[in-house]
Amino acid sequence: MLKKSLLVLAISSTLLMGCNDDDTIEVIKEVEVVKEVEVAPAPITQVKNVILMIGDGMGAQQVGLLEEYARRAPNSIYNEMNNQTALTKLGHAGQLGLSLNAPFGANGSLVVDSACSASQLATGVAAGSEMVGLDEQGNIVETILEKAKRAGKATGLVSDTRITHATPAAFASHQPHRSLEPAIAEELISTGMVDVMLSGGARVFLPSDIKTNNESRQLMADLGAPTSVYKKSKRSDDRNLIVEAKEVHGYNLVFDGTQLDNVTGEKILGLFANSGMEDGIAYTACKADNSCSQPSLRDMTLKALDVLSQDEDGFFLMIEGGQIDWAGHVNDAGWMLHELLKFDEAVDAVYEWVKDRNDTLVVVTADHETGSFGFSYTRKDLPAGKVLEGNGMQGLEYKPNFNFGSLHNLDRLYAQTGTFYDMMNQVNGDWDFTNTLGSEWADAVNAHSDFKISDEQGTAITEREANEYHVDGHKYLSATEFPKINDFKEFFVYGDELHANLIGRALSADQNVVWGTGTHTAAPVPVYVYGPQGLTQQFSTMQHHVDIANKMMSALLPE
Amino acid sequence: MLKKSLLVLAISSTLLMGCNDDDTIEVIKEVEVVKEVEVAPAPITQVKNVILMIGDGMGAQQVGLLEEYARRAPNSIYNEMNNQTALTKLGHAGQLGLSLNAPFGANGSLVVDSACSASQLATGVAAGSEMVGLDEQGNIVETILEKAKRAGKATGLVSDTRITHATPAAFASHQPHRSLEPAIAEELISTGMVDVMLSGGARVFLPSDIKTNNESRQLMADLGAPTSVYKKSKRSDDRNLIVEAKEVHGYNLVFDGTQLDNVTGEKILGLFANSGMEDGIAYTACKADNSCSQPSLRDMTLKALDVLSQDEDGFFLMIEGGQIDWAGHVNDAGWMLHELLKFDEAVDAVYEWVKDRNDTLVVVTADHETGSFGFSYTRKDLPAGKVLEGNGMQGLEYKPNFNFGSLHNLDRLYAQTGTFYDMMNQVNGDWDFTNTLGSEWADAVNAHSDFKISDEQGTAITEREANEYHVDGHKYLSATEFPKINDFKEFFVYGDELHANLIGRALSADQNVVWGTGTHTAAPVPVYVYGPQGLTQQFSTMQHHVDIANKMMSALLPE
Repeated sequence: MLKKSLLVLAISSTLLMGCNDDDTIEVIKEVEVVKEVEVAPAPITQVKNVILMIGDGMGAQQVGLLEEYARRAPNSIYNEMNNQTALTKLGHAGQLGLSLNAPFGANGSLVVDSACSASQLATGVAAGSEMVGLDEQGNIVETILEKAKRAGKATGLVSDTRITHATPAAFASHQPHRSLEPAIAEELISTGMVDVMLSGGARVFLPSDIKTNNESRQLMADLGAPTSVYKKSKRSDDRNLIVEAKEVHGYNLVFDGTQLDNVTGEKILGLFANSGMEDGIAYTACKADNSCSQPSLRDMTLKALDVLSQDEDGFFLMIEGGQIDWAGHVNDAGWMLHELLKFDEAVDAVYEWVKDRNDTLVVVTADHETGSFGFSYTRKDLPAGKVLEGNGMQGLEYKPNFNFGSLHNLDRLYAQTGTFYDMMNQVNGDWDFTNTLGSEWADAVNAHSDFKISDEQGTAITEREANEYHVDGHKYLSATEFPKINDFKEFFVYGDELHANLIGRALSADQNVVWGTGTHTAAPVPVYVYGPQGLTQQFSTMQHHVDIANKMMSALLPE
Repeated sequence: MLKKSLLVLAISSTLLMGCNDDDTIEVIKEVEVVKEVEVAPAPITQVKNVILMIGDGMGAQQVGLLEEYARRAPNSIYNEMNNQTALTKLGHAGQLGLSLNAPFGANGSLVVDSACSASQLATGVAAGSEMVGLDEQGNIVETILEKAKRAGKATGLVSDTRITHATPAAFASHQPHRSLEPAIAEELISTGMVDVMLSGGARVFLPSDIKTNNESRQLMADLGAPTSVYKKSKRSDDRNLIVEAKEVHGYNLVFDGTQLDNVTGEKILGLFANSGMEDGIAYTACKADNSCSQPSLRDMTLKALDVLSQDEDGFFLMIEGGQIDWAGHVNDAGWMLHELLKFDEAVDAVYEWVKDRNDTLVVVTADHETGSFGFSYTRKDLPAGKVLEGNGMQGLEYKPNFNFGSLHNLDRLYAQTGTFYDMMNQVNGDWDFTNTLGSEWADAVNAHSDFKISDEQGTAITEREANEYHVDGHKYLSATEFPKINDFKEFFVYGDELHANLIGRALSADQNVVWGTGTHTAAPVPVYVYGPQGLTQQFSTMQHHVDIANKMMSALLPE
C-alpha cells in the first residue's frame, strides 16, 4: 500500500512541474519528505552487533523468583527502581518468547547439559551431550563468534564462572568433551578468535607446579596477579598459558577490578579467580562495603562493551551469568536469588547501552532450567482465619486451607549471608562429612540463613548411604557412598555436594520452596530480545535454541 | 510520519485543481486511494469476541512435555501434522509472552490456587486465596463475562472438570470459598449471565436423595440423562437445579455427545458427568474405537463457538482444560500428556475458527503450574560409549557422564493405558490402602504403564505414616495417617491420593521425570495470543494475570 501511495505522489509532482514554477519548487521539497515515509516501515533485519546473555539454569521458574522478589518483597532492593528488573524493562521494550533446548537431533535426548546447549546456541545445529563446539556427529562447526571474527568484527566472552567452562567454551573452542578445560584454554588463547575474555579459571592456564615453583609464582606476581588467582593448577604440563597469551598472542592481562578499569587495547585476557569467580552472596556483601576486589559481572560487561564497540565493523559478545545454575544444582534458593540479582545488573548495563540504538540485537536467555525450582504451598503453618469487610463474604471467615507462602520469605531469602557451600565448609573445610553431627549442620545453616533449622533437621543432613549407581573411574559416580537423598534419588548425581541438597530440604517447608532435581530440566526457557522490530518479532514464539542461533547469525552476518 | 504524508498530498491536489481540468480528475481519484493508506496502519485495539483458554496447571514445563512429544517422539501422533501442535501454530501466527500469577495484592502470597487465579483473570484485580469472583477484601467484582453480557454479548463457559469448579466458577459467580459448589450452581443457572455452559458436575445440581428417590431418577431419565450423570448428589436440599435451569431459566439441556450435536437455541446447559468428565487417557481410548459417549473438549468448544457466534454483538468464551492440573497434582506424567493432547485439540478448533478473522482475540494461558514437573537427567542406566565419525573427536569415545533421557520415553508415556487413579482403584476400589501389598501395587502399575516396577518398588508405595500436620475438621488434613512421602513432605497435602504420588516416584527414574511438589508452583506461565496485531503485541512481555484481564477487557469492551 505504501509503495502505491508514493507512485501517486510521483505523478502529482510531475504534473505540477509544467504549471507554475514557484509553487512547483515547494511541492518537490515536500515530496522528499514523503520519500522518507516509504523507507521507514521497511523492516530492519540486519544489525552491526549481537549481544547474547545466557543465564545458566535460568528457566521461567528462576525468572519468577527474581520478578516476585523485585516486585513484591516488602524490602525489595528494586523498590527505588519502580520494582522493575532490567529483564522486565528489556522485555517490555522488546519482545519475549520461549525456547526448547534439548539436544536437537533425531538421535538426541530429552535433557541438555550446558556444553551441548551452548554449542547449539553457538552453531545452530544439533550437538551431542557434553560436547563443545561440535555437531552431533562430532564434527567441528564454525560458531557465530568465529563467523563474526571472520567478517572482521570484534568478539568477546564474559562469564562469572571460568572462561573454559562449558558455556563460554562452546563459542570459541571445539572439543569432544567439556571436561577438557586445559585444551580449551589452549584453543582460546591461540586461535585469535576472541578479543576480550573476562572470567575466572586461571587454574587451567597455569603450569602444573604453580603451587610449589617459586619462579613461576614470582612470574605471576610480577604480572600483577593476586595469589588467589594462582593458588593451584589443573594442568598436567609446565606451560603457562597466561604468559603465552601475553607474549605470543598479544593479550593485555588483568587480574582484578582495578586493573580491568585501567587496561587499554583491543585484546584483553582477564582471569580474576583460580576457578569460579565470587558467588552472588559474596558479591552483594562486598558491594555493600565497597570491598570487592574482583570485577562484577556488570563491570566486565561494561568493559567488554567499551572495548568491542570501538570496532567499526561491529561485534559479537556473549555474557554468562553462570552461577545461577550452580545454586540450582545444590538447591540453594537464597544463593540463586543473589545470582539472579547479579545477572540482572549486567542486563541493566546492556539495556542502558543499547536502548537508544537500532544497530544491535540483544538476546537474553538460558541454556536450560536447573533444579525444577518453585515456590509452592504446604500443609505446614496454616493461616489463621480472619474477618474481611467485603460484601461477598456471607459472614464467613477468610481462612484458606493451605499455606500459600508469605511475601516476607522473599526478604528472608535475600538475607542469606552464605551459600550452602559456605555452610558445608563451616562443618568441615576438607569436606569430610562421614562423621558429622546434626548440631554442626544446624549451627552452620543457622549462622547463614534467616530460616532456622533444629538439630534433628540437621541430623537428616548428615545421613549417607551406599551409592547403588557406583561406577569405577567415573568422574562423579566413583564414590561408593553418597549423601542420602530419599525420593527421586537417581536425579541427584554430584556425590558429596548432595549434603547441600539436603540443606535445601531442611529449609524448604519454611521457605515455601521446592526442588525436583539436582540436575537440569527440559522446560522451555524465556527468551528476551531487544533490537530492531523486524528482528525481535521473530522471537515471540515457541522456538528451539538452534533457531535462536540461526536468527542471530542471519541478523549479524549477511549471506 | 504517515499523517504528514497525507498532508502533502492534500496540498498537491489542491494546487493541481487550478491547472488542468482533465488531469485533475484523475489525480483526485488517486488521492482517494492514498487516504486508504492512512487508515491501514492504525492498529486495531478493539475486537468483537474474546476467547480465553486456560490450561489448568499448564506451565512452561507442561507445554515443554507436549512440544517434545509432538516434535520428537518417534511415533508422535503429530507426525502427520508436520510435528506442529496447535499451540505452536497459534503462537507462531500470533505472539507469546509470560505471566506471573500469584495472589496479586500487597497482602498477597507467593503461590496461587485455581480459584484465586481465575478470579484475577476474570476481574483484573487482586483476589484472595480460594475465593471465587471476589477481590482481596471479599467484595463482589463484575467479571469480564458479566461485563460482556451487560454489553449485549453472548457468553459461554466450557470445562472438562465440573462447571462449578474453581476456574469456570470464577467467571460467573461470587463466593467466599471455592468449596461452595452447590451455591455456585445456583448462581450459574439463575443470573442469566451465561448462555452456554458445557462441562461435568451434575452432582451439585441434583437433589440430595437422587440416589434413592425413584421419582427424581425417572425425571432425569425422562430428560435424557444417562444414569452415570445422576448417580449421586452433593446437595443438602431437595432442589433439582437441572430442572430449574430448564423450566425457570429457559436452558436447553443436554447430557451426552449426541444430544449436544443436535441441540439448538441460544441457552444451553450441558452436564455430561456427575463429577469430572472423562480423563485424557480414557478419551484417547474411546476416540480410537469411536466409543465416546461424552463430548470431547474439542466438541464442546466447537459447539460453543457455533452457538455464541450467532450473536451479532459478539461473545466472551472461556474454555478450560482442567485435568492437566489433576494429573500434575498426582505426579502422573502419562496422564498429563494425554490431557495436554486433549487441550491442544480444543486449541486447534479455536485456531481453525479464528485464523482468518480479525475481530477476535484469543488468549491461551494457564492459571499456574502444577507439580514442578520436568524431564531430568540421572545417574541410572548410563549410556554406553560409541564411536562417532566427526573430525573433532580426537579419537575419543562419545560417552556422556549421565543418562539424559531417551526420546522413546515420550512414546512410552503416551502408551500409558490408565491414570494413577485407575491403578489405585485396581488395588482397592474403596480406597482402603491401610494393608496393601507391594505386589498389588506393582501389578496395578504394570497393567497400565509401559514402564514396569518391581514388587519392592511397589512396597514403597504401600508405606504410610502419622500425619504430623493433622488438623481436626480440615477438609484435607483431618486424616491422622498419610501415605509416606519422604522429601518435601509438607508440599504433599491431599491425604490418600498421595499413594498416586508414590507411584510417580516409583516410575520417575525410568521415565526421566521429576516432580517437586504435589501442589502448585509460582513459575510464570506461557501466554499465547492471536488476533489483531495492535492487541497481540501487548502480550509479548512479562506481565501479571491481572494485566491480562485488563488487556482483554479493554479489547472487548470500549469504555
